This record gives sequence, C-alpha cells and structure tokens, in this order.
Amino acid sequence: MRVLGIDPGLTRCGVGVVDSAGSRKAVLVDVGVIRTEPTVTVDLRLAEVADSIDRWMDAHVPDVVAIERVFAQHNVGTVMGTAQVAGLAMVAAARRKVPVALHTPSEVKAAVTGSGRAGKEQVQRMVARLLGLADLPRPADAADALALAICHLWRPAGALQGGDRHELTPAQRAWAAAEQAARRTPSGVQGR
Amino acid sequence: MRVLGIDPGLTRCGVGVVDSAGSRKAVLVDVGVIRTEPTVTVDLRLAEVADSIDRWMDAHVPDVVAIERVFAQHNVGTVMGTAQVAGLAMVAAARRKVPVALHTPSEVKAAVTGSGRAGKEQVQRMVARLLGLADLPRPADAADALALAICHLWRPAGALQGGDRHELTPAQRAWAAAEQAARRTPSGVQGR
Repeated sequence: MRVLGIDPGLTRCGVGVVDSAGSRKAVLVDVGVIRTEPTVTVDLRLAEVADSIDRWMDAHVPDVVAIERVFAQHNVGTVMGTAQVAGLAMVAAARRKVPVALHTPSEVKAAVTGSGRAGKEQVQRMVARLLGLADLPRPADAADALALAICHLWRPAGALQGGDRHELTPAQRAWAAAEQAARRTPSGVQGR
Repeated sequence: MRVLGIDPGLTRCGVGVVDSAGSRKAVLVDVGVIRTEPTVTVDLRLAEVADSIDRWMDAHVPDVVAIERVFAQHNVGTVMGTAQVAGLAMVAAARRKVPVALHTPSEVKAAVTGSGRAGKEQVQRMVARLLGLADLPRPADAADALALAICHLWRPAGALQGGDRHELTPAQRAWAAAEQAARRTPSGVQGR
C-alpha cells in the first residue's frame, strides 16, 4: 500500500509518500514541501498549492491520502489557510476516487513515537529511524507529512472516507501514473 | 461588468450572478444554491461543490468573483467547511485568471441595506427590490450571494486580488463560455 501524507499549510505544505513493506516496515518514496510566497494574493497561492498537490497525486498514484485533521480552535492566524489547503487536498483525492483519511496530530505523534505529546524533533528522529534515513527529514512539515503516512499504514482504521480505489499493484500504479500524466495537459490549462 | 457572488458553505453554498446596467442598476442573470448531503463524507462533498462552482464559472464567465470573507472566529461547527468552500471558489477563479474580491458580511449588508447590522430578511427584501424581483430570493444563502455580487458592483474597491481578466463584452463572454464548455469534458474526468 502507498500512502501520500499531507501536512496542510499555505506557506509550507508538507508532502510525503511512503510504501508499506510488510510487518510494520515502511519505505520512503518521496518527500517535499510545497511553498508559496506570503506576498502573493491568497487566491493565487491556493491555486499554486492545488496544482502542486495534483502533480504529487499524479506522479505517485497513492492508494490513500492521509491528511492532518484541522481544528477550528487551532492558531487563528493560520487556521483558514490550513483548512483551505486540507480542503484542496481532499478534492484532489476525491476527484481521483482515492480514499482520504484524517488523522489528528496526537494520533500521528503517538503512532510514530509512542507519545501523543511528542515534540517536533522527536517526530523527525523517529521518522528518520523508521524509514532508515541518514538525515532528519527537514523542515518539520516534511517530517510531519511522512509521519502522517506512516501513521496511516499502521492505523488504517482512522477515519477512512469516500473513494473506491483498491490497493494497486506496481504495474497498475505505473499505468495510472502514465494515464494521469497524459490527462494533465488539458486540465492544467482549464479555462485559461 | 458581470459578478458571480458566492456565499460559501458546505451544506448550502449560495451562488448568484449579476450584471451591472449602469448608474447603480443591477440585473439578475442567475441564482441558485449548491447543496450537499451531510450524510456523505467531507471529501466527496467538497469535490461536489468544487465541480458545481466550476460549472457556474464556465456557464456565466464572470469578470469578478465576489466571495464572503470567512473569519476564524465564526461558528466553530461550520467554519471549517465554509473556509474550505471559499478556498475552492478562489482556486476556481484563479485557475481561470478571474480576479477575486473578498467582502465582509457587514460590508455586504451595508451596501444593500445601508446598515451593516441588517437582518437576513431585510437583505432579502432589498436584493429583491434592487434587482426588480417579484419574489424574495430564497433561501437566505441565495440572497446573500446576490447581495455579495451587488456589493461588489457598487464597492469594487474591496480587496481585489489576483487575476488579469478585464471586463468582457457580451460576444467575448459567449466565446469564452463555449471554449470553457469544450474544455470541461477532459478536465471533468481528470484522473478517474
């Protein structure tokens, strides 16, 4: 099973792709951070993040997208952008019929460190250890996205939502990636 | 100038299209409410709203999209869905290079009734009067979307954001609508 973890944010949105390798083992496929400039207007920043998430979906063809559950009580200054990016990620998944799972920050921390109150650096260290990485994944947003994906591999019962895609074989995944890349061009210029 | 007003919401999202007709006159083009079922999972509901907003954009080719500004302090139970739908509307506009304007509820109420604290029914009555409608626009979400569009016609200074489209002539609009309809089919099945 392949999981795309998304730690939503408007200035920095962490994205991490992890494959399961049986018996609580996980393998890093790709990781990154989608960044947008605070000097740009919100509409253009959201569109940029949406386009980037589309590219990550199409390049890696996940079986599930695991997104951090955003709460209204969170940091008032950034919660709107965070919620909006989480919404865009859900739409990107739903349009591809990929199931979405929402995990709370404490579920994610507990899954990778054993403690729901672990600090950011502890999460980074455990993600590096679990994936056998030589360096800590940075910034924290990237580590959080990988932690979300690992959490979902190990706790798949968490809040699975719509979508009817079943686990793909590597051959099916390669075919789907090629097909989605071919479809990208017309949709990328939609309405322009 | 044609404005698409959007009163964002996950259960009910008001949409209203208004054309300016010179000297503080406005003409109703279309109005409606996008509804999704609370029994469906959030990812599928958001995708449904996004698809509907895309259809409204492509059918009416607005020069500007006026969206209600959502505040984090609002009703905690619904603010996340409201923020997410507002984000989807901004992305739909940005992808078409249509400028986005955000107006606060009190700006909108003041623009159509003269009072930033007007009640829902007063807004409905004034929208009906300003557009010369025989009946009150219902539900309130539909009236609010029309009020947003009227507010923007009369107070265009409000928070204009990205986008480089200039006001279209009717012929240009018809051409753009046809072109966008032709592009809809491939993008509508994107990644499926």
